[in-house]
Amino acid sequence: MTRTYIKELYVDPAAFSGRQVTVRGWARTVRDGKNVGFIELNDGACQKNCQIVLSRGDVAEYDGIVHCGVGAALTVSGEVVLTPEMRQPFELHAAKVEVDGASLPSYPLQKKRHSPEFLREIAHLRPRTNLFGAVFRIRSQAAFAIHKFFNERGFVYVHTPIITGSDCEGAGAMFRVTTLEPGEKDITKDFFGKRAALTVSGQLDVETFAMAFSNVYTFGPTFRAENSNTARHAAEFWMIEPEMAFCDLSGDMDVAEAMVKSVAEYVHETCAYEVDFLTERVCPELNARFEALKGGEFVRLTYTRAVEILKDAVAAGKKFEYPVEWGCDLQSEHERYLTETVYKKPVFLTDYPKGIKAFYMRLNDDGKTVAAADLLVPGIGELIGGSQREERLDVLEARMAECGLKAEDYGFYTDLRKYGGCVHSGFGLGFERLIMYLTGVANIRDVIPFPRTVGNLEF
Amino acid sequence: MTRTYIKELYVDPAAFSGRQVTVRGWARTVRDGKNVGFIELNDGACQKNCQIVLSRGDVAEYDGIVHCGVGAALTVSGEVVLTPEMRQPFELHAAKVEVDGASLPSYPLQKKRHSPEFLREIAHLRPRTNLFGAVFRIRSQAAFAIHKFFNERGFVYVHTPIITGSDCEGAGAMFRVTTLEPGEKDITKDFFGKRAALTVSGQLDVETFAMAFSNVYTFGPTFRAENSNTARHAAEFWMIEPEMAFCDLSGDMDVAEAMVKSVAEYVHETCAYEVDFLTERVCPELNARFEALKGGEFVRLTYTRAVEILKDAVAAGKKFEYPVEWGCDLQSEHERYLTETVYKKPVFLTDYPKGIKAFYMRLNDDGKTVAAADLLVPGIGELIGGSQREERLDVLEARMAECGLKAEDYGFYTDLRKYGGCVHSGFGLGFERLIMYLTGVANIRDVIPFPRTVGNLEF
Repeated sequence: MTRTYIKELYVDPAAFSGRQVTVRGWARTVRDGKNVGFIELNDGACQKNCQIVLSRGDVAEYDGIVHCGVGAALTVSGEVVLTPEMRQPFELHAAKVEVDGASLPSYPLQKKRHSPEFLREIAHLRPRTNLFGAVFRIRSQAAFAIHKFFNERGFVYVHTPIITGSDCEGAGAMFRVTTLEPGEKDITKDFFGKRAALTVSGQLDVETFAMAFSNVYTFGPTFRAENSNTARHAAEFWMIEPEMAFCDLSGDMDVAEAMVKSVAEYVHETCAYEVDFLTERVCPELNARFEALKGGEFVRLTYTRAVEILKDAVAAGKKFEYPVEWGCDLQSEHERYLTETVYKKPVFLTDYPKGIKAFYMRLNDDGKTVAAADLLVPGIGELIGGSQREERLDVLEARMAECGLKAEDYGFYTDLRKYGGCVHSGFGLGFERLIMYLTGVANIRDVIPFPRTVGNLEF
Repeated sequence: MTRTYIKELYVDPAAFSGRQVTVRGWARTVRDGKNVGFIELNDGACQKNCQIVLSRGDVAEYDGIVHCGVGAALTVSGEVVLTPEMRQPFELHAAKVEVDGASLPSYPLQKKRHSPEFLREIAHLRPRTNLFGAVFRIRSQAAFAIHKFFNERGFVYVHTPIITGSDCEGAGAMFRVTTLEPGEKDITKDFFGKRAALTVSGQLDVETFAMAFSNVYTFGPTFRAENSNTARHAAEFWMIEPEMAFCDLSGDMDVAEAMVKSVAEYVHETCAYEVDFLTERVCPELNARFEALKGGEFVRLTYTRAVEILKDAVAAGKKFEYPVEWGCDLQSEHERYLTETVYKKPVFLTDYPKGIKAFYMRLNDDGKTVAAADLLVPGIGELIGGSQREERLDVLEARMAECGLKAEDYGFYTDLRKYGGCVHSGFGLGFERLIMYLTGVANIRDVIPFPRTVGNLEF
C-alpha cells in the first residue's frame, strides 16, 4: 500500500480519475447518514481536504467508521471520482477504511469557529485547524526560502551562540542562564563561572565570520525579557541576520529588498491555497500584497526627509498621537502613515540620527546621522533594521565611549578593525514579523508554534 | 567595478584567460620582493586562494601594498593569466590594488601551523584559516542539505520552543532561565512565574505537529548542563528531529538513511576542495567515507544480536574496557567495534532493552524491548537515536508510571493518543556529530563557531 498525499490529487485530479489510491489523515468532519457517510480528510501536507464517500454496502464495519469521531486518524483506500459539478473537484469512493486511532467526543476542535484565545490554550491541537495549518506551512516555506536565497548567493550560514557572556548591543532586557538553584548567589560556582544570558542578537559574532567568508547570515532564536504584553512582541523569536563584507548601505538595501521579494515569491508559488484561504478569512488585502511585491522598487528615503513629510502632513491637518520632531524615534503610526498612506509600498528609511541608533552604525560625514536603513512595510511597520557598520577604529572607539561601553568588553569586535577591516553592512529581519506580513495574522502569538510571553510557558 | 569571486575563477579559469577582473578578500600571505610581490588572497567563499602578482612598475604605491600586513583586506583589479606549469592554475597580474584595511603586525595568524587550543582562544579569527574555512563552509552546506532534503519531501519545518517549562524526557541536566537576580528566590516574581529551562529536545512538542502535518522536523539549538569535559560534548549544540505520522520503525530508518546519504552527497558535490583539504590534513579516510556512503545499504541489526556478536568477540580474545551484557548500554568502544571492525559501514542497532531507553518508545511484543533504532557510524559512534513512539494510551501511561513521570505533566502528549493517534516514528540527529563525521574533525569545539562548555563562555 503506497500512500498518496492529498496534495498530489489536487495537482492533477484528472490523472487520478478512476484510479485506486490510499490516503491517510485526520477526519475534519464526519457526516453519518444511514447508508452513506461523508468524511472530510486532511493529511496536513495540503490546505485542502479530500472528501471521502463511504457506503454501508461497500465498506466493512460502516457503523464503527462513521462513529470514529472528529479528529480520528484514518487510512482510506478507494477510487478517485471526478466531480466537476461539485465544490470540490473530486471525491474518493471508499472501498476500505481503517481507523488508525479513534477520537474521543471531548475533542475540542468540533466544527465551529473558535477564538484565537481559546486556540492558544490548546496549542498542541490548533495546527489541525485550517488557519494554523496555513500559517505553519507558510512559516516553513518562508524559512526554506530564506535559506535558499542566501545559499544560492554563496552566503555561509553561521550558528552564532545562544548562550552569551556579553550584552551585545544593549538591545534589550536579557534572560539569565544558570545552573544555580533559586536563592544561590555564588556565581563562581555557576556552570560558566560567570554571568550568562540568552542572546538578543548574533550580529557582533556574525561580523567576525563576515570578515572571513565575505557573505554570511545567521538564522536562529533570540530573546527579550521585556515585560511587554503587545500583539507584536514575544520573549522568544527567530531572527535572520545577514552580514556582507565589501558592501555599503546601498548594497545592504539591495540584498534586503531582493530577499523580501524572493521569499514572498516562493511562498506565493508554493502556498497558493494557503494564501487564498488567508485572504478570504483573515486579511482581504493579502493576495494583493503578494502581487504588489512582484513589481516596483521599494522607496528609499532619508529619515530627515520623512520627518519633513510627516510635519507637512500635520500642518495640513493630519492628527498623530505622538509629536514628530527630528531626533525622535518614529512611532508605529508614523511608519504606517508613510507606507500605507503616502507611498502604499515598502519604504527604506535611511540615515537616522545617531542618538537613536546603536554604537556600531557608521557615522555619516555630517557627524549627526548614521548609515542606517530600516525597512517599513504596510500593515506591519518595521520589518528590517540594517546599517553599514563603523569600520574606522578611531571613530568606533569614540562612539563606544560616547555610549558608555567598555572597550575591553569588545576586544574581539575592535580586532576586526585592526586586522583587515573593510566597508561592511548587514541587517536583522524578525522572522515572526515577516510571517505576520506574509499571512496577514495580526498577533505574534498566532504565528509561533508555542509562543512565550510574560507569564506564559505552557507546553 | 563588479566583484568576481575567486570560486568563479576556479570553475573555469580558461574562460577568464586574459580578462580584467576585480577580486576582494584578505591576504593570507604577502611576499615582497624588491620589484615583484606575491599575495595569496582568499575571499572566504572558496577554499582556494588567488595568487596575485604585482610589479613595482605596474601598480601605484607598491611599497605600501606589500607592507599591508598578513590579514589585510584588499581590492585587486588585473588580468587573469593561466599558469598551467605552476601549482595554481592561474594568477592575477595586478594593475591596481587598494588596501581596504591594513593589518597590524600583532595579527595572530602568521604563516605557521597553530594548535587547535590556541585557535579556540581566537575563535573570532580562526575562520580565516584553511581548516576552519573548510569546516564552517561544510557546516553551512550540510545545514542547507538537511533543509533541502526535508523540504523536497514535503516535511514542515517547526520551530519548537527553546525556553521550556517541562523536563521533556529527562534527557539530561538542564539550564535554568530566569530574570531574577542571583540570590533572589521568589519564583512567582520570575518572568514566567514558574521554573523555566532551556530545552534538551523538541521531540514531544514536534510530535504534536506530526499529528497535524504528517511529516515535520525541527532544526534548532538544544542544551545540556552536564559537567563533562570530553571531545564529544558541548553545552549548546544543534539538533535535527524529524517526526513522521503513519510511519513505523522500518520507515523511520529509511528516512534516516536517505537523509544521511543525501546530505553527504550534497556536501561532497558542493565542497569538493574542502573535503580534499580535510582528507589531506585532518582525516585520511575522509574522501573514502564519502565514497562509501554512495553505495551500499546500512546494516540493520538487533541489539540482542549485537550483544551476541560482541560476546563472541570477547570469547575469541577481543579485549574491551567495559563488559558486555544484555541489558547494558553499549559503550563507544563496542559501537566502534561493530561499525569499524565487523561491518565497516554504518549500522542501525534496533530493539533495545526498555530499561535503557526513554518512556515514549513503543514497547515490542516481547515486553522486554522497545522499537528503537540508533545509527552508529565509523569514527564517531552514535550519530542518530530514533524510535517508533508508543501510540497506545494504556501502554504509554503504564510506562510513564513505571518511569516515575506524572501524567498531569504530559497531558498534551497523551491527548495525541486520545484524539486520532496513529503509528508514528522519528529520530534525533546531533548536528555537530554529523559535522564531525563529514569533516573528520575529532573535537566538537572545532566544529562550532563559538563553543560553550563548562567554564567557557567567551565571545
